[in-house]
Amino acid sequence: MEGGQQQGVVKHVLLAKFKDDVSPEKAEELIRGYAALVPLIEPMKAFHWGKDVSIQNKHQGFTHVFESTFENVEGIAEYVSHPVHVEFSSNFLPALEKVIVIDYKPTPA
Amino acid sequence: MEGGQQQGVVKHVLLAKFKDDVSPEKAEELIRGYAALVPLIEPMKAFHWGKDVSIQNKHQGFTHVFESTFENVEGIAEYVSHPVHVEFSSNFLPALEKVIVIDYKPTPA
Repeated sequence: MEGGQQQGVVKHVLLAKFKDDVSPEKAEELIRGYAALVPLIEPMKAFHWGKDVSIQNKHQGFTHVFESTFENVEGIAEYVSHPVHVEFSSNFLPALEKVIVIDYKPTPA
Repeated sequence: MEGGQQQGVVKHVLLAKFKDDVSPEKAEELIRGYAALVPLIEPMKAFHWGKDVSIQNKHQGFTHVFESTFENVEGIAEYVSHPVHVEFSSNFLPALEKVIVIDYKPTPA
């Protein structure tokens, strides 16, 4: 299992900038909703997020990074089309001024 | 030490799109140069990268993700100004059509 994860793990990275009219409380609520997907969507194995703390000013206005972990690309496809993700996205995406979503299989250490 | 890492770890995420005239061989050479920074820059604790495998078409043309891990934001400042990083960047950045760099402290699991 552990070996399988090492081989197949795929990171799903979402960079977001919330709209200016989204309050910090609303943003927090949306982020809690994102985290709440983990126990509901089987292929979603882990979730971490954080606010931008960049010092180089190359972040192009993005304010948050969200990183989810999946065992494979098929798991991401299942996640994307899962009803609770679809419902979450319909609330989350309209709150964003801009968003980039990119998936990659990280090299081993 | 382990506890300190948990508390203070900062992820340094670089999204890149190589210019069309950069050959795959040249890109690989540049990526090897990126990975070679780890043993040379003390605060750079880990490095992983991968090519875009997105299925949602929200990656806005970015083709590669590079993720480095630092113990804290001060470590990133030391990395950014380190002579071998400055030298590497002077080769790497001109090969990119676009780039986003964002740092964040991921929430615990």
